[in-house]
Amino acid sequence: MRLPAIAPTANAELAARLDAAINNKTKPLGSLGALEVLAKQLGLIQQTVAVSIDQPAIIVFAGDHGVVAEGISAYPQDVTWQMVENFLTNGAAINVFARQTGAALYIVDAGVNHDFGPRPGLIDCKVAHGTRNFAHEAAMTAEQCAAAMEHGAALVADMPGNVIGFGEMGIGNTTSAAALMHKLAGIPAADCVGAGTGLSLDGVLRKQRVIEDAAQRHVGVSDPFDVLATFGGFEIAMMAGAMLKAASLRKTLLIDGFIVTSALLVASRMAPAILDYCVFAHCSDEAGHRRMLETLGARPLLQLGLRLGEGTGAALALPLLQAAANFLNEMATFASASVSEKSANE
Amino acid sequence: MRLPAIAPTANAELAARLDAAINNKTKPLGSLGALEVLAKQLGLIQQTVAVSIDQPAIIVFAGDHGVVAEGISAYPQDVTWQMVENFLTNGAAINVFARQTGAALYIVDAGVNHDFGPRPGLIDCKVAHGTRNFAHEAAMTAEQCAAAMEHGAALVADMPGNVIGFGEMGIGNTTSAAALMHKLAGIPAADCVGAGTGLSLDGVLRKQRVIEDAAQRHVGVSDPFDVLATFGGFEIAMMAGAMLKAASLRKTLLIDGFIVTSALLVASRMAPAILDYCVFAHCSDEAGHRRMLETLGARPLLQLGLRLGEGTGAALALPLLQAAANFLNEMATFASASVSEKSANE
Repeated sequence: MRLPAIAPTANAELAARLDAAINNKTKPLGSLGALEVLAKQLGLIQQTVAVSIDQPAIIVFAGDHGVVAEGISAYPQDVTWQMVENFLTNGAAINVFARQTGAALYIVDAGVNHDFGPRPGLIDCKVAHGTRNFAHEAAMTAEQCAAAMEHGAALVADMPGNVIGFGEMGIGNTTSAAALMHKLAGIPAADCVGAGTGLSLDGVLRKQRVIEDAAQRHVGVSDPFDVLATFGGFEIAMMAGAMLKAASLRKTLLIDGFIVTSALLVASRMAPAILDYCVFAHCSDEAGHRRMLETLGARPLLQLGLRLGEGTGAALALPLLQAAANFLNEMATFASASVSEKSANE
Repeated sequence: MRLPAIAPTANAELAARLDAAINNKTKPLGSLGALEVLAKQLGLIQQTVAVSIDQPAIIVFAGDHGVVAEGISAYPQDVTWQMVENFLTNGAAINVFARQTGAALYIVDAGVNHDFGPRPGLIDCKVAHGTRNFAHEAAMTAEQCAAAMEHGAALVADMPGNVIGFGEMGIGNTTSAAALMHKLAGIPAADCVGAGTGLSLDGVLRKQRVIEDAAQRHVGVSDPFDVLATFGGFEIAMMAGAMLKAASLRKTLLIDGFIVTSALLVASRMAPAILDYCVFAHCSDEAGHRRMLETLGARPLLQLGLRLGEGTGAALALPLLQAAANFLNEMATFASASVSEKSANE
């Protein structure tokens, strides 16, 4: 995939205007904390002081993983397609939260090991019936990985709105995400693996060994695209492609949990300026997520001990984006409300 | 004020039914983290598995403080009434956030040092034109303190809905809140005071001395009601009365920042079971708030570095309450969605 051009958002003149607008609102200086940082970021992304959250969408990318053959998940692979069915009949957590927050929800088959047939509401971008087992060979061919990224970019190019939340479903994908983290950030596998959907301690140790052995097998692979093809998943590659395209279109990217962050880690190694466009929804309870966020210099909005995926953290953080835009647009200023400013002697 | 009876929410049979309902949803066990804890708490408060967030309201109590004569605030006292005017014309942060989240907003004059005259939208419960300066004498008479608490209870008794968020406005009230914390929790004044709306370091030290000196002057005062009358404010006493009444009516109390938490600290020393009904919206950036929350055994939902008051943190946390209720009511179960459960060997 040819990388779309992503412009850094830095703009000193606009930043000063945003600071002035935020600081003139009727509140003590800095008293809206993270929401003020967020309002300024939205302004820099959208190149305006009149920010908006326009037709927010959440895209859930689903894919299967050959590495499940190594016994690294608490749930059987069938759960991937069963949960896609659950998404399509509005029964999953992400359906509930997207509906509550007014976000459009898109469900994408990036590479599930199941034949859904034509299904209303399911976007068919299936690259293959699941990846191969990276414990033995590369998960994807270069062609498959590129196809997944291009599908993601094309999806986003056609999408209205200026905020996209990313979510995923794929039994085994915390193993893939942990392997990407290990390879790209150089963090020991033991610090990258967690319990996923609820693995036992033995299972976590097995997962760690699978990653260490595979990293050893593919020790020469270091280019971000090659790392993605070797250890990634179709949903992860498709997200990375979608994220790169979304940032190039100056959309705000709402980053969910561990797996979504791993897709961003890959994308950020291809185009570092993408990070200017990212809002980090939450720090999940999956063991490696905090460390991966630190690697990206990310400050997550929520810490709720979530570890569900599907974009649920992104959906739950969306009202905070709306609040950031709303206070900037709707609050009175000290002058307009005739409120006295801080005393000169304090 | 006669204390309303508050029943502890503990109910082993209902708790088991709530756990089963939460655990049968199509998600890994415990993967919704704090939202699962919240859903269970809502169920125990409302005595049902079919929880609801019904007509949520936010009440902002405003009052003035004689202790401002000691130079303990960065803003002049006039800002209290000016901000009340701002609330009434929808220009403040709480107006924006309450509107966004669909909460009814009530503005109460508990004791502002200003004559508003009859004003649509302003609930007149004025006890007096501000408290007296607790650096020299008790802030309130026992009669004034009781009247404030009774006003608060009466307000809540007439209110529809099952969730009440508490907010406040009052120049000088972090000093009052810090004094209550120091007296009731026995925490050194230095750990109770913070910058409030933006005090200098010198100002913070002055604030600390004012509290230490006043605590020394009133060293024999220890009954919670007497401590409230001596160091509190009309808005704080009115909140405490409102909170006690709301809990007795089995409403959920959504606790905002430092000052609101100080009112709850007082109320919890009068009726400890009130804590069963409290959801802690956020940990504010005001220095003593984290310690005060710990004293109450509270786990706040948000950590956004807010320190604005007005109930803004409560409004921002309300979507999380709605999400907790919604997932419990609307998500499919493993059985209803035909999703496989966790593998037996994991």
